[in-house]
Amino acid sequence: MRRRVQFYETDAAGIVHFSCFYRYMEEAEHALWREAGLSIAPPGAEIGFPRVAASFDFHRPLQFDDEFEVHIRIEEITAKTIRYSTAITMNDTHIATGRLTVACVRKRQGEPLKATEIPSTISERFEVVEPEGHS
Amino acid sequence: MRRRVQFYETDAAGIVHFSCFYRYMEEAEHALWREAGLSIAPPGAEIGFPRVAASFDFHRPLQFDDEFEVHIRIEEITAKTIRYSTAITMNDTHIATGRLTVACVRKRQGEPLKATEIPSTISERFEVVEPEGHS
Amino acid sequence: MRRRVQFYETDAAGIVHFSCFYRYMEEAEHALWREAGLSIAPPGAEIGFPRVAASFDFHRPLQFDDEFEVHIRIEEITAKTIRYSTAITMNDTHIATGRLTVACVRKRQGEPLKATEIPSTISERFEVVEPEGHS
Amino acid sequence: MRRRVQFYETDAAGIVHFSCFYRYMEEAEHALWREAGLSIAPPGAEIGFPRVAASFDFHRPLQFDDEFEVHIRIEEITAKTIRYSTAITMNDTHIATGRLTVACVRKRQGEPLKATEIPSTISERFEVVEPEGHS
Repeated sequence: MRRRVQFYETDAAGIVHFSCFYRYMEEAEHALWREAGLSIAPPGAEIGFPRVAASFDFHRPLQFDDEFEVHIRIEEITAKTIRYSTAITMNDTHIATGRLTVACVRKRQGEPLKATEIPSTISERFEVVEPEGHS
Repeated sequence: MRRRVQFYETDAAGIVHFSCFYRYMEEAEHALWREAGLSIAPPGAEIGFPRVAASFDFHRPLQFDDEFEVHIRIEEITAKTIRYSTAITMNDTHIATGRLTVACVRKRQGEPLKATEIPSTISERFEVVEPEGHS
Repeated sequence: MRRRVQFYETDAAGIVHFSCFYRYMEEAEHALWREAGLSIAPPGAEIGFPRVAASFDFHRPLQFDDEFEVHIRIEEITAKTIRYSTAITMNDTHIATGRLTVACVRKRQGEPLKATEIPSTISERFEVVEPEGHS
Repeated sequence: MRRRVQFYETDAAGIVHFSCFYRYMEEAEHALWREAGLSIAPPGAEIGFPRVAASFDFHRPLQFDDEFEVHIRIEEITAKTIRYSTAITMNDTHIATGRLTVACVRKRQGEPLKATEIPSTISERFEVVEPEGHS
């Protein structure tokens, strides 16, 4: 995914606010689902994929108008969870490295979320990708 | 409503991003509803209050850590809409002046939103307030 | 400008939060400057373009994954201000109509912002565009 | 720090977007600095504290209007970094657990950020706090 820093994503330190990196990671996740012919949150869906854990190591800042790339790959799929790994780069410079784990849950009006198995119609569209060695 | 500028609300120009003022106005609106003993979006509500129009004139910038006040009053209530007026000030200095109009709509799963009358249990809790002359 | 609704731009009502429309308008403004070969906030710039006024009328909601278009045109340029008009559409449906006025200011460390004339190297790159009658 | 969920912090899943938790953690960090009589970003500061790493484990969702608490403590201070630990709770229920590492850097116009020692006027105002066993 290729993306440009928007002005509202910067902060008074003149760089992208760190909370925006988690949004970039999610944008890339949703783009990955779309490429697989899926939507992570189709209208009326009975299951959802809330975030269970997310982390980033920040190597270098991004500034307004910078064009950067978000690379996302699936590190692991279990029966009920998906774990992604993300590398944000600009012109081959490492900007940030992230991880995101999501769980499949059943949503029922007025009930707490409950973990459930990822439907095979979803899991079979994805595959675990090994790292390229440097990410 | 009294509030402090958060770091993530500033931008690379060193001031609060203008889009955040609309969020401040909405925070004050929701605080006004709470003071009236109401929630604007209680769980399972069949009606909602989408925004129909919103505007701001910006007089002076806010910076990180500034403490400011958001004054909101109802300018007009019609059968299906509420119009608010907002003044944001810091130490009696005018920072910004805003307006917000919301409409009452009925929400039905899978149907488009449809304007409906504001329930009297809501409208009777509010009253139109005249400006104090200087806002 | 063509754009897709991101998940973090939606709210608990299931639609794009109204404050995000002001961000879309600004994204389109910055894209317009880039097309003109300019940046609205180049590193080390001595002038800036703070927002003086911004408004939106909201006609229809946008939802997650919707693809929409942001059309922006310059309505008026004065010596020190630029006024834009924006139409957000999806498949020829009117979603929202906005206006934005920005002023040119001189920035000096530790001094208040002061309105100044738009440099001709900037103003000559832009032209006022008449509406197409329906926007 | 006590805080209420704002409507614009929720997403179409009806819960607080996970990226907002990083903002809550930062709000608590800045409140901690203020309590220590400091600002993390005073006007004209020559040093800054960019984020080096940040992570969250999410245990339970927060919804609109929920009132929650953010507990932050310093886990470790080294010559050039501070590491915080955060627990977000609501009525004694664990909502999320986070970690944040920031580095002290010297800022010079037009130069890359460079790690530097935390001034003793800052570090002596803080102390490392042991966990209470359950956070």
